[in-house]
Amino acid sequence: MTDKLPIVFYFDFTSPYSYLASERIDELAAKYDRRVQWRPVMLGAAFKASGMPLLVTIPLKGEYSKRDFDRSARFMGIPYRFPPMFPVSSLSAARAYYWLHGQDCGKAREFAHAVFRAYWTEGRDISDTAVVLDIVNSQGLEVGACETAIATQEIKDRVKNETDAAIALGMFGAPYFMVDGEPFWGADRLPQIEKWLQTGGF
Amino acid sequence: MTDKLPIVFYFDFTSPYSYLASERIDELAAKYDRRVQWRPVMLGAAFKASGMPLLVTIPLKGEYSKRDFDRSARFMGIPYRFPPMFPVSSLSAARAYYWLHGQDCGKAREFAHAVFRAYWTEGRDISDTAVVLDIVNSQGLEVGACETAIATQEIKDRVKNETDAAIALGMFGAPYFMVDGEPFWGADRLPQIEKWLQTGGF
Repeated sequence: MTDKLPIVFYFDFTSPYSYLASERIDELAAKYDRRVQWRPVMLGAAFKASGMPLLVTIPLKGEYSKRDFDRSARFMGIPYRFPPMFPVSSLSAARAYYWLHGQDCGKAREFAHAVFRAYWTEGRDISDTAVVLDIVNSQGLEVGACETAIATQEIKDRVKNETDAAIALGMFGAPYFMVDGEPFWGADRLPQIEKWLQTGGF
Repeated sequence: MTDKLPIVFYFDFTSPYSYLASERIDELAAKYDRRVQWRPVMLGAAFKASGMPLLVTIPLKGEYSKRDFDRSARFMGIPYRFPPMFPVSSLSAARAYYWLHGQDCGKAREFAHAVFRAYWTEGRDISDTAVVLDIVNSQGLEVGACETAIATQEIKDRVKNETDAAIALGMFGAPYFMVDGEPFWGADRLPQIEKWLQTGGF
């Protein structure tokens, strides 16, 4: 496409604001002739690095947050329903993503959207590998090859290495974006990212 | 002005996002024929209630935050400089505000702007009562009466009571806004507040 640097989008499938950002970031980037690299990570490891508890468990802030997830989704015009199980592990989904990404970057993107939507609009339990493989299947992808791949050390290491790399770049929450070396945290920073792309930094 | 409910704006003079919001909230409210009640509170008490540490001291998140304060100010077009002393106590300034508010609501608003700007653009130490009284003086207000008033139990209790009331409403950080019973946290929620005012809730 272009010789401009890609935007790197670090996310966890079980992060509500990551889901909201996932529905907008590609379109925003394309407007300014940019590609986006999608990088699922394990947010739990970032919370450990920053010493922060899970948002929804924080007194006062946790209750507010659930209201803000819902209102932010309505504000952005994105279908959303807080899932019956929260949080859950996104490890299998992240492993399947990196395997697919090695095969076909575009299909991996479609798979990622399908996982996000399965969890954040249908409340499916994406921590269950069977559910992840069902999504793989519904995308017309090879279930057997995926099942084998996500059990390999190589794919397991990939998720860990991507997470460690993101934390080394300063990631403490998600979504976390790197735009030409500038970090942006949160779906609510998309307007700042747009201004950054528009002006080349401000 | 109108029979519509006022927006309540809870803030701490030493909160950078409170300062950014203070430069925009009145103008935004007026556009939708609303008044704003300004309510300085002690953010330290809210952090205690939610069990949260001071933002800038959190590993990874703290470093990001300082960058985000600065970038958000540029994004919003507001003069800003991280003060040499941070954080400092805003108790004397809050007490002076409530005393002034009992005399003249409009002058209290002007004083609040002056305190915010003294700290967030000039780096003055607003924890020093002498600095607060100097700002009172520069606004053409009665320094002696203010000095006497802020030492009274009534004014001391007022700050504590306003803070407790805000926490009872769910405040865990600042700025915190109540708009027709709906809570909004953060200068970055001003666009959601605008949509709320425009549509009567969404």
